[in-house]
Amino acid sequence: MNSFGEFFRISLFGESHGKGIGVVIDGCPAGLSLDKNDFSKDLERRKGGKKGTSPRRESDIPLIKSGIFNHKTTGAPISILFENKNIQPRDYLSFGAIPRPGHADFVAVHKFGGFQDPRGGGHFSGRLTLALVAAGVVAKKLIAPAKVKARILEIGGSTDIERTIDLTIKENDSVGGIIECHVQNLPIGLGEPFFDPVESLISHLVFAIPGIKGIEFGSGFACSRMKGSTCNDVLINKNGKTRTNHAGGINGGITNGNEMIFRVAVKPTPSIKKEQETVNLTTGKKERIVIKGRHDVCFALRIPVIIEAAAALVFADLLLRSQAVPRIWGEEK
Amino acid sequence: MNSFGEFFRISLFGESHGKGIGVVIDGCPAGLSLDKNDFSKDLERRKGGKKGTSPRRESDIPLIKSGIFNHKTTGAPISILFENKNIQPRDYLSFGAIPRPGHADFVAVHKFGGFQDPRGGGHFSGRLTLALVAAGVVAKKLIAPAKVKARILEIGGSTDIERTIDLTIKENDSVGGIIECHVQNLPIGLGEPFFDPVESLISHLVFAIPGIKGIEFGSGFACSRMKGSTCNDVLINKNGKTRTNHAGGINGGITNGNEMIFRVAVKPTPSIKKEQETVNLTTGKKERIVIKGRHDVCFALRIPVIIEAAAALVFADLLLRSQAVPRIWGEEK
Amino acid sequence: MNSFGEFFRISLFGESHGKGIGVVIDGCPAGLSLDKNDFSKDLERRKGGKKGTSPRRESDIPLIKSGIFNHKTTGAPISILFENKNIQPRDYLSFGAIPRPGHADFVAVHKFGGFQDPRGGGHFSGRLTLALVAAGVVAKKLIAPAKVKARILEIGGSTDIERTIDLTIKENDSVGGIIECHVQNLPIGLGEPFFDPVESLISHLVFAIPGIKGIEFGSGFACSRMKGSTCNDVLINKNGKTRTNHAGGINGGITNGNEMIFRVAVKPTPSIKKEQETVNLTTGKKERIVIKGRHDVCFALRIPVIIEAAAALVFADLLLRSQAVPRIWGEEK
Amino acid sequence: MNSFGEFFRISLFGESHGKGIGVVIDGCPAGLSLDKNDFSKDLERRKGGKKGTSPRRESDIPLIKSGIFNHKTTGAPISILFENKNIQPRDYLSFGAIPRPGHADFVAVHKFGGFQDPRGGGHFSGRLTLALVAAGVVAKKLIAPAKVKARILEIGGSTDIERTIDLTIKENDSVGGIIECHVQNLPIGLGEPFFDPVESLISHLVFAIPGIKGIEFGSGFACSRMKGSTCNDVLINKNGKTRTNHAGGINGGITNGNEMIFRVAVKPTPSIKKEQETVNLTTGKKERIVIKGRHDVCFALRIPVIIEAAAALVFADLLLRSQAVPRIWGEEK
Repeated sequence: MNSFGEFFRISLFGESHGKGIGVVIDGCPAGLSLDKNDFSKDLERRKGGKKGTSPRRESDIPLIKSGIFNHKTTGAPISILFENKNIQPRDYLSFGAIPRPGHADFVAVHKFGGFQDPRGGGHFSGRLTLALVAAGVVAKKLIAPAKVKARILEIGGSTDIERTIDLTIKENDSVGGIIECHVQNLPIGLGEPFFDPVESLISHLVFAIPGIKGIEFGSGFACSRMKGSTCNDVLINKNGKTRTNHAGGINGGITNGNEMIFRVAVKPTPSIKKEQETVNLTTGKKERIVIKGRHDVCFALRIPVIIEAAAALVFADLLLRSQAVPRIWGEEK
Repeated sequence: MNSFGEFFRISLFGESHGKGIGVVIDGCPAGLSLDKNDFSKDLERRKGGKKGTSPRRESDIPLIKSGIFNHKTTGAPISILFENKNIQPRDYLSFGAIPRPGHADFVAVHKFGGFQDPRGGGHFSGRLTLALVAAGVVAKKLIAPAKVKARILEIGGSTDIERTIDLTIKENDSVGGIIECHVQNLPIGLGEPFFDPVESLISHLVFAIPGIKGIEFGSGFACSRMKGSTCNDVLINKNGKTRTNHAGGINGGITNGNEMIFRVAVKPTPSIKKEQETVNLTTGKKERIVIKGRHDVCFALRIPVIIEAAAALVFADLLLRSQAVPRIWGEEK
Repeated sequence: MNSFGEFFRISLFGESHGKGIGVVIDGCPAGLSLDKNDFSKDLERRKGGKKGTSPRRESDIPLIKSGIFNHKTTGAPISILFENKNIQPRDYLSFGAIPRPGHADFVAVHKFGGFQDPRGGGHFSGRLTLALVAAGVVAKKLIAPAKVKARILEIGGSTDIERTIDLTIKENDSVGGIIECHVQNLPIGLGEPFFDPVESLISHLVFAIPGIKGIEFGSGFACSRMKGSTCNDVLINKNGKTRTNHAGGINGGITNGNEMIFRVAVKPTPSIKKEQETVNLTTGKKERIVIKGRHDVCFALRIPVIIEAAAALVFADLLLRSQAVPRIWGEEK
Repeated sequence: MNSFGEFFRISLFGESHGKGIGVVIDGCPAGLSLDKNDFSKDLERRKGGKKGTSPRRESDIPLIKSGIFNHKTTGAPISILFENKNIQPRDYLSFGAIPRPGHADFVAVHKFGGFQDPRGGGHFSGRLTLALVAAGVVAKKLIAPAKVKARILEIGGSTDIERTIDLTIKENDSVGGIIECHVQNLPIGLGEPFFDPVESLISHLVFAIPGIKGIEFGSGFACSRMKGSTCNDVLINKNGKTRTNHAGGINGGITNGNEMIFRVAVKPTPSIKKEQETVNLTTGKKERIVIKGRHDVCFALRIPVIIEAAAALVFADLLLRSQAVPRIWGEEK
């Protein structure tokens, strides 16, 4: 099912080159002020059209169809629709027989029948992250004053990001990167043992974003090389503030009031202009392939705002869950 | 809710120092041969009592209470119960006021009321991974001939694992490690876009295991430093076999028929015998703390079989889901 | 959450007097032919504007936004939007303080805060059944050759339905009725013990339709007055055909291949033109109330197609579930 | 999946003639006092061994395996196990080929493979209602001071219940009945539109109890024969008290503070000692059948406490949901 979240649930629909894409948000509390303009900044950050990203530009205007009355959420499901305008489906039609290296073409042929929308990945396109970002905007408003901020740490292993992009464009190649995300002002106590600790939910949603290959929390893989006496963060006051933050703001799967930190590894865009080798699935013979269409040289550049959305959506869900601690009824009276 | 999985669902219950712990497995197909003896090997691998691990030894005999008839699964829920015998709750009673560094003591005080079972973590104890391993045994049988195998890659950054453990014991400290897991013979096509790709489900369940700080699939973080022309795995035959395996057997969140590979980072046990600094939550003053009780010097040593269980459980779920592709009814006739 | 169904899941959104209402259908198999025109007949049957029903007429044109490619379902979520045009919200604004007898006004004040859309019931309006009927159209196509047919059995206890309506209009009153639904050509074996037998799912969805007060399957309440030797339906052939059908086509919660039959009781429309007594919640004093706005004299007249939709949706879900019987993996090879 | 409830979730396991049956309750708040003795009264009411019911007697002692500490719930899952002792499986083995009239034998052959536990219905036995009653005991404690009380209204259409039973025993026949359930002291506002109104959840769970053929709320089917001016319950004070209670305490799917009332129709036990006609599924020929084993002459006699459990479980779930109304986070501070 194309849904995520228990208390703040998003359901995605739409195809990359169909009439549009959208999201239904179920569980958002009533009374949150929400307006079309709230979406502009994050939607713009996700857009292509800048150096290193795909030239496809969509206006991406959110059409709010339900759940809002007098500029406030009503508590009923919020539905947001985006229409597709800039469609060039003819570029995407032939990858069934000759799968692109590093792409899902090969598995799609095996998994889905002949009826799926083949245009630009259909429902299973990166364009669905647009709906994720839109839902993330609502989630960010809900979790305020908590604040989510993701940024590019490195591209292709380098912090000179512009130079790396320029070189890669010249080589007709693509390149990956690492994104770091910080969440501040979170309350203590978010996260649900046993199966829904913070890391489980964040990683679940983050890996739904196409092209993510790894995630680590706090000092992450470096922790595995530490001794306990180093890795343990020492409390320095009653509010749980710690001297170091190797834990990344989480103990036992639950936020501890310190800054929450995680990093994700983004692979290079699999679609490159350089000629590549592959196999023709019909003939079984080797083929050379040159990929056309509009692709990002480095889609990691567009990922930070999507990562932020993912984090905000998880914390919106966990915040609502934390309000829902079951209580003895009779004792309330 | 203490459940995981859509089609092969496990529900955990029990406390570390209560009467016992257990698991209910719902959705297991009928006709799978299953016997008490099937559990011995994996349960033994998870046990403490060996060098570097806690001296707590439980007999850990699985009592199958339902779902089996004539040594075969019936299709009804399988319930497996383990009784706790070797209980020493008095060691664990005082961490509310003086939280152990690196532990969930501080967040537990904030999140849970005064009624939780405080003995050894209660329901939120590593002992629950016993039930996970038991469920994993059933999952492993179900996904055969696919085969899950996890092993320790390094401890404390070193491959001389025995020496690292010896040194750490001497220092009254603890140490983390990295586990690598391989899954072979998986069919092509497991994984569900948009929200349930393989990586999302694996990471969701893996991070439910206490002490995991990072996960990466295939070449993982190294992918972020590659060019697309390197990272893309070239197909070399019609069956989807690739020359390299940077993808770790997954494209677009779906298994591609190559070996599936992931690595996880395990932090050092937070409980160490060395004296540590902390804060008394009642007085607000600094305290020195020396932790007693029975703890692993390196619980990463016990993690591989738990990681295997997590992977097997996810693939059992995805295998059953892959059988459940909706079909047009009328056309079947 | 505003969703129903496990394998064929519908999620409703929208408000009676907002921009529109809609439904997302998740889980529909790929390859089902589906066209705007498929919806006309059922949507027309649900409409008001005929004798005994509300004069509100909406064009109710289904806008399919996703999930269809080349006139066939793709397997991705199908979203269908209806725009609201004929809106007269001013009639509905004042029932917070002076609740209408038999209406949900009183409970809505208690349950929902000040932010809900008050216009015509907002999200909690009978207009949402439009989206249910639209989803039902898709479900009916999916379950063919099974066929769902509901009809009015009696209105106000009488089978002379036209005369009853005429009298009730003259009296400025409203009236209820009984609907009977038959489902033919169902396969044997639909329904899921323990918690999802056919009757559980049908009744769950049927009682979500506003104004339903009772449901009975087969001979229903009459069974409670029979002896077993009468009530037991005797098999007359190997295919499960029975001589009588007191069971209504269901044994042990599972379809038995005979015609499936149920009846529902619909209460009279609570909104009547006749003056009624109520209490002013602010002053606590008795008030006389005369209800304006556009209301059905007998909304039971519009219910049959909604009941059909409910039954079709449940059987679509159960059909897909019946395809998803878990199987041993290794033995398939 | 063998689970019911969103916030107060029960999962059943076990077979009629296996080692035992049980239930896991997830979501019960911490701090509810709970003891083995709390179960005695309701378990006794459900037992057979009295006139008109099966002579099978089990000790039915609840073994609480988790979720309790110092006689109070901890907030972790509560698991309760019952061992089966009084087993006579040989009576039940031969109904595959010669299905009993009115029984699920015929559909079971079609739906389930050869691996199910055939003894006395296996997992799909009325004995599972024992676990339902046990869970209901916990739910009743949780919803106090609300009080659930079900009683037999009529047996075989008569209120002289003892005489009806005596006659039916003499005739080697069986007989059905009607149960009425009242729930008092419910808070206003329980029930979740659109898909989870009170009636939907109650009927969903009630129809999971074997042998129920109908349900009606308030005046139920009689409402369909009333005019609106009669059926509408007039408010007589600010607290929502109404003069009549045709609504049965529910408006728009939500409790209105008046007594909540529903009735269910129970069919006669299909297993009767009288000789009956059926068909041999192997030969296709007519057969005469006389059913042995231990059966209720009128299992409606054992149903009231199970209906109470169902109602209590639904209201426990809805009470916890009503505590979980999502709220704006930032405004709480």
